[in-house]
Amino acid sequence: MYKAPVEETVFTLRHVAGLSAAMAEGRLGELSDDLVEAILTEAGRFATEEIAPLAEIGDRQGVVLQEGQVKTPDRWPALYRAWAEGGWNSLTASPDFGGQGLPHMLHVAAMEMWNGGSMAFAIGPTLTIGAVEALSAHGSDALRRTYLPKMVSGEWMGSMNLTEPHAGSDLGVMKTKAERRGDGTYRLFGQKIFITYGEHDFTDNIVHLVLARLPDAPAGTRGISLFLVPKFLVEADGALGARNDVFCHSVEHKLGIHGSPTCTMIYGDGRFGGEPGAIGWLVGEENRGLACMFTMMNNARLAVGMQGVAIAEAATQKAIAYAKERTQGRAPGWQGSGMSPIIEHPDVVRMLLTMKALTQGARAITYACAHAVDMAHATEGEEARHWTERASLLTPIAKSFSTDAGVDVASLGVQVHGGMGFIEETGAARLYRDARIAPIYEGTNGIQAIDLVTRKLPLSDGAQVKDFIAELRGIAAAVRASNDPAFGDTAARLEASLTDLEAATEWLGTALGEGRQLDALAGATPYQRLFGLVLTGAYLARGALADAGDGRRAERTALCRFAAENIIAETAALKDRVINGAASLEAARSVLG
Amino acid sequence: MYKAPVEETVFTLRHVAGLSAAMAEGRLGELSDDLVEAILTEAGRFATEEIAPLAEIGDRQGVVLQEGQVKTPDRWPALYRAWAEGGWNSLTASPDFGGQGLPHMLHVAAMEMWNGGSMAFAIGPTLTIGAVEALSAHGSDALRRTYLPKMVSGEWMGSMNLTEPHAGSDLGVMKTKAERRGDGTYRLFGQKIFITYGEHDFTDNIVHLVLARLPDAPAGTRGISLFLVPKFLVEADGALGARNDVFCHSVEHKLGIHGSPTCTMIYGDGRFGGEPGAIGWLVGEENRGLACMFTMMNNARLAVGMQGVAIAEAATQKAIAYAKERTQGRAPGWQGSGMSPIIEHPDVVRMLLTMKALTQGARAITYACAHAVDMAHATEGEEARHWTERASLLTPIAKSFSTDAGVDVASLGVQVHGGMGFIEETGAARLYRDARIAPIYEGTNGIQAIDLVTRKLPLSDGAQVKDFIAELRGIAAAVRASNDPAFGDTAARLEASLTDLEAATEWLGTALGEGRQLDALAGATPYQRLFGLVLTGAYLARGALADAGDGRRAERTALCRFAAENIIAETAALKDRVINGAASLEAARSVLG
Repeated sequence: MYKAPVEETVFTLRHVAGLSAAMAEGRLGELSDDLVEAILTEAGRFATEEIAPLAEIGDRQGVVLQEGQVKTPDRWPALYRAWAEGGWNSLTASPDFGGQGLPHMLHVAAMEMWNGGSMAFAIGPTLTIGAVEALSAHGSDALRRTYLPKMVSGEWMGSMNLTEPHAGSDLGVMKTKAERRGDGTYRLFGQKIFITYGEHDFTDNIVHLVLARLPDAPAGTRGISLFLVPKFLVEADGALGARNDVFCHSVEHKLGIHGSPTCTMIYGDGRFGGEPGAIGWLVGEENRGLACMFTMMNNARLAVGMQGVAIAEAATQKAIAYAKERTQGRAPGWQGSGMSPIIEHPDVVRMLLTMKALTQGARAITYACAHAVDMAHATEGEEARHWTERASLLTPIAKSFSTDAGVDVASLGVQVHGGMGFIEETGAARLYRDARIAPIYEGTNGIQAIDLVTRKLPLSDGAQVKDFIAELRGIAAAVRASNDPAFGDTAARLEASLTDLEAATEWLGTALGEGRQLDALAGATPYQRLFGLVLTGAYLARGALADAGDGRRAERTALCRFAAENIIAETAALKDRVINGAASLEAARSVLG
Repeated sequence: MYKAPVEETVFTLRHVAGLSAAMAEGRLGELSDDLVEAILTEAGRFATEEIAPLAEIGDRQGVVLQEGQVKTPDRWPALYRAWAEGGWNSLTASPDFGGQGLPHMLHVAAMEMWNGGSMAFAIGPTLTIGAVEALSAHGSDALRRTYLPKMVSGEWMGSMNLTEPHAGSDLGVMKTKAERRGDGTYRLFGQKIFITYGEHDFTDNIVHLVLARLPDAPAGTRGISLFLVPKFLVEADGALGARNDVFCHSVEHKLGIHGSPTCTMIYGDGRFGGEPGAIGWLVGEENRGLACMFTMMNNARLAVGMQGVAIAEAATQKAIAYAKERTQGRAPGWQGSGMSPIIEHPDVVRMLLTMKALTQGARAITYACAHAVDMAHATEGEEARHWTERASLLTPIAKSFSTDAGVDVASLGVQVHGGMGFIEETGAARLYRDARIAPIYEGTNGIQAIDLVTRKLPLSDGAQVKDFIAELRGIAAAVRASNDPAFGDTAARLEASLTDLEAATEWLGTALGEGRQLDALAGATPYQRLFGLVLTGAYLARGALADAGDGRRAERTALCRFAAENIIAETAALKDRVINGAASLEAARSVLG
């Protein structure tokens, strides 16, 4: 059974992602070490004791749609209410609307643990928090007053309505229409698909944020507006009024995260009587909807990255526990009587250490991204610009590397279990199924790579990435300066991987500068992976160099060395793929017919 | 919908795996080109038109156990009968028992296609063929006369009963007992788990091959005997007699291959009345059961490798079709109006070409392994020894590389489909689920790696692997000699990868020679992968160099170049992991607690 890794999250926040430094510099207000520990301990307890025990039933029962109503798995509505009553929905929200105004770093660590308990459960609340962010940043005072307090408390949930059948990665072609009613409100008509928690029985009302197009809007992404469309209209006194003209037409039969409803939502077909059209309120300005949505999409991408970390952590815990218990064969050097636990076999050790290293690397990258977000909020001027850029640069890597790690680690987890891994009751298979959506939603990892290469590398004319690499060089230098033989060849390995990253970065900059878009994009995914591996090595080293006084320094150094000597070496091949791969890729297009 | 790749299988057999050369040398009797094409065209038609359309219903319905009877999916029993009536069960069996005595090469190509249609369906018949092989090689005349004709015709199916709850990879600790009855027969008592098609409604009788231990047997693997235990006893006239004391206690709820029953079998609990004990007949000698089983396990491993190839091919076809049809965004250089098909995006091209290259590499390796099996049968003396060794060397690589490719390619296939890939109705998710068992059963890929490094590399004092690498060097030299610029950097890349393989092989030889078992085993899996990648590059090049007169040489050269310049470069990191990975792995064991 999953046990939230509270110690590891606190350590990583403090000593790897930069929480302790930020607190020491007074960047995070009155946040104390005790409060950090208290919050994460309780978030972890909730994940371990409340969420995790209901994960399997959620997977097995899935959701049921009957006459437009979605029934979530047994005991899930009560689980949600307990979660909201614990105040977990309001961690980062503004105190103006009942929020606690805490740093994103705490939030991502808590999200990791809730998703570790059950990704299908945690995805819903996460989307509400995204909706709160968008509404806080772009909603009118009236909208914020009406909706935010109840969304922050968790009394109502939110949903994000972007995708349409022909508009997924490319939102510019969406067709959902919004018509002005003349009273400041709008009527929406259209169909949205893949809407996570678009309908459910957790809360009485659901606040949909919906992208749609006005009749006179310009074509493409510059003609999209954002609307707030509640399931039930809200009266002046805050009470629920009439049913709005939006409903759930169907739910998907999915590979994983069965407990979460994935809905097709129909807007404006008039089925509830009266004039057709779902009544909506504009959020932000007309035709600026995509920019508003991006406010929350960056955080949503980081949140999906957390799902990758969470699945990887859960899969690793499960595999280690099984490998200690299951005996089979006799490993070389095994001194015990009878068969050895399979954790004694070198190949199993290799799988488990790979799982550990990828999990901790992904965790460190995502937490470091949250740190950059917090620092951007805590600073001003040039400094804020720096941290905003850092968060922008890290977001696609955090999303893609962590979600790929989720899939890879969950697959290794099944393998460690042998035949038992293929049996659903064991639970390893569920993680393998759940993990698979994370590299796809909130922008596929291929889209993240395009974003990284074409939008993030050019930040500050390339100075942002250059400075970042220089910082990472500092970690490698510190490993070298430590002269600790337990690091083995780590310093040299890290230095070599950084040289690969520099060469690939420079090559991409040149290719883009010369307008060789195809060449650059052909190498975008290998580059993104390369960056993630370098960060994994560097952050594991930063953790190993830290003195947390918890007696685990030797372990961290050993894991860092394992990663440096076994995983990071891939960077050479990845750099080669970035720099030399495009020509053969173009030449081979004909193979695809 | 899956379409059996008949042309590609025929090409690969002839020009890559060695079928044409073997036929030209007269090694395969009267086999003609026309017959090869006729057989594989019809096997492919059956896969495309009969099996594939029933794959989805098999996945959705799964199997149902009621009062010891397993109901397979709708129309599957009729599908099986049509398959058996087509003579497909008898391809490689001896003409003495109604078989066609055809080469294994044809069989693996046909198996690839049947598994491409539905892996859950094809796994059952495959096991029968394995049972036929074991019985042919080790059964008494009486047993062979009684059982083989009906097993060869497909009137009865077979099953393999090895695994017990505490005896999976390590069969030495199995507990199933066999007691001598004094009349030459035995009574069996015990429980077997994970028995594929242990019970079903395809045939009236099921012939179980069961490993069990005699009362006076030595401990460990040298005390295991093989027994034939029919579901129904067979009368002297061949008619079905009394129900034997074996039954299916439960079926597993699995991640994938839902249509195939995975049974827990109980032997000898006396539920059908009479004296308890399932009546069995010894196959081969007492206490030599594991050796008998290994006869068919090698072929079973190759058959599982074919499942990896099959899933990879099916996933690739599906992804290419979707990528051509789905439009989204505008790829750089896209000249059409509106959105481009996603196949125009470089990142999608990279995914699809990677899928193509891994699929074709895995296919070539498995077919080459079947070629070695056929040559071992067709030759004598030193030559037979050489080919037996070659088949032995290739088997673990064929099994592991192909099944890993199946998982990786199916995962990429889901990714290419974006959100649709996560929806079960699309079918990409089923392949991702089905694929996951293949790296596990018939010896996990970790077990294959141990086999490769500790048993196969030492063959002929290392001369077998050395000669093989020299042959592969010949392919690289031919690429260089071709002077064809379309190969790009292929020659140099192949040469470098072969140098990596040589270095890793030599290092492992030294480590084993010096008794450093842990060091060697720590690198076994990376070594196995390294070998598979080198073979992929070499066999793609062999195919590209061949002149098949089918106008596809340029395509094959382009795919070979893509693989050489994008995939094969991983060999450097893998070699490094073999040679330098063990120390850090040992040092980090403490991390696992």
